[in-house]
Amino acid sequence: MAVYTDITDQELEAFLTDYDVGAALAFKGIAEGVENSNFMLETTAGRYILTVYERRVNRDDLPFFLGLMQHLAAHGYPSATPIADRSGAILKTLRGKPAALVAFLPGLSVRRPTVAHCREAGEGLAWLHKTAEGFTGRRVNALGHGAWAPMFAGLEADADALKPGLAATIRADLALFAKSWPLDLPKGVIHADYFPDNVFFADGRFVGAIDFYFAAWDDLAFDIGSAVNAWCFEADGEFNVTQAQAFLDGYERRRPLSQAERAALPLLAHGAALRFFLTRLVDWSATPAGALVRPKDPLEYERKLAVHREGLPGFGVRG
Amino acid sequence: MAVYTDITDQELEAFLTDYDVGAALAFKGIAEGVENSNFMLETTAGRYILTVYERRVNRDDLPFFLGLMQHLAAHGYPSATPIADRSGAILKTLRGKPAALVAFLPGLSVRRPTVAHCREAGEGLAWLHKTAEGFTGRRVNALGHGAWAPMFAGLEADADALKPGLAATIRADLALFAKSWPLDLPKGVIHADYFPDNVFFADGRFVGAIDFYFAAWDDLAFDIGSAVNAWCFEADGEFNVTQAQAFLDGYERRRPLSQAERAALPLLAHGAALRFFLTRLVDWSATPAGALVRPKDPLEYERKLAVHREGLPGFGVRG
Repeated sequence: MAVYTDITDQELEAFLTDYDVGAALAFKGIAEGVENSNFMLETTAGRYILTVYERRVNRDDLPFFLGLMQHLAAHGYPSATPIADRSGAILKTLRGKPAALVAFLPGLSVRRPTVAHCREAGEGLAWLHKTAEGFTGRRVNALGHGAWAPMFAGLEADADALKPGLAATIRADLALFAKSWPLDLPKGVIHADYFPDNVFFADGRFVGAIDFYFAAWDDLAFDIGSAVNAWCFEADGEFNVTQAQAFLDGYERRRPLSQAERAALPLLAHGAALRFFLTRLVDWSATPAGALVRPKDPLEYERKLAVHREGLPGFGVRG
Repeated sequence: MAVYTDITDQELEAFLTDYDVGAALAFKGIAEGVENSNFMLETTAGRYILTVYERRVNRDDLPFFLGLMQHLAAHGYPSATPIADRSGAILKTLRGKPAALVAFLPGLSVRRPTVAHCREAGEGLAWLHKTAEGFTGRRVNALGHGAWAPMFAGLEADADALKPGLAATIRADLALFAKSWPLDLPKGVIHADYFPDNVFFADGRFVGAIDFYFAAWDDLAFDIGSAVNAWCFEADGEFNVTQAQAFLDGYERRRPLSQAERAALPLLAHGAALRFFLTRLVDWSATPAGALVRPKDPLEYERKLAVHREGLPGFGVRG
């Protein structure tokens, strides 16, 4: 939760002269997004989010992300529409950094999803996968399964510092994935960060998804695995198979899963837990002791990994 | 710029059941306010700011602040109106902390005020002073001139660490104020933090003031002195007498100054610079080296103090 780039009234006014969105009425930095600076902007024409992309986002990926958002919005998927300036440009520059204006998407995220929320969220994810089918942009998933072994190579000591013996356990996970990862599942554009804080509800119904800045081309079912890790675990670390089944049921309202996808789901979710464990471990290792901003706890995902190593009874089996 | 308290969707929903403001549609933490956590809330009935008061605000002062805001809004001053719940209560509790809901006030603050902005801001401050006349609440200014010598007593070494010899210079300032501070100026409710980020404009006109959490009973002209320090210095540290004169001209549209107030203004502004220097020095001294959140630079106000020690030619003299 941060605003890294400070925008003055004069910079904002100059930025908006390129657009047909009227004059600014209110402008506030919002405490949302770890990777970017986000501002709520109200103008005489409507409400928008202004995003300034910070150093963790690769500039070369921005046309893919913004193109995807544009495609989704143009095809009726409830997500924030990027706003083009008068010359048709979506990706702009502000204070020397890449920046974009998107329409404000109302909705509330939920902290502790219910079974009903999981069903809605599952449907929202399948809707996203289906809507993205016609999108021609491609981006390799830099955090996909092929990246984990090289990522972990330099982190073994950090893993053992976090929990003695953990490095060997992770090596065993990696060996399992190297041997068993399915290679012929249906692929497409995945959200890759479909966590509860990126999904909006109104009156208990799914009303939209935001934050497409990890989206990539990968196994569609891997996106389900990542989402189930985020949506279907209790605060005490227990897997909630009822919520996971509801997520899948909701998903299949829009996109039925193949037998191969269902069979692979426990392994994909296990791998997805490793993916989030690894990026959290990177952040944790890079943060000096005593820093005021604490990174997310990697051990939350190590606890999920431990659950996956035991197996998820009932998960992925057609109910 | 921070959000210290994290509010879940369930806590928000429970909080709103006490109010007649409909159901939440959107809710975002805003990166504004150093002392409190602020959230932008949109409901089916309108838009609001939810403030959760953090430890730096004294709970006993909240009825004064909120009562003042209520008085100002009820008497037509453009400021955020506190919203009462169904039982008439304005000061509520959320996550065990004091909290209040106020109407959203649109407008943009300016980073580099022009002469015209200063004139408008001056008028807005006098309007505030006049509107607060009927408010019966009282709060001693805990950061008023009587507090500075005791505050500085424990900070002399920090001042010298910041700049060698500074402690002696500050002691000379304090001696000047002890001898010369005017004791019979018109008193009233002052904003006490009337900085550009707390004042909103639309189309170059003053449209409102926010953040009354330093308001107190003190010399009205002391509020002008504080404001002039914030509005009428150039980025290079030069005093801008044209802007200061415009601020006073704007002020006098609503409340003419007495001869005694005009004559006292240079000393009051000098004292106000010390007040902000001292609180920044306290924060600076309390922040560990290497912390990611940097406190505001006390030397910015030491540079203003140096300007005041030289005198402000033309300031306060009737133009």
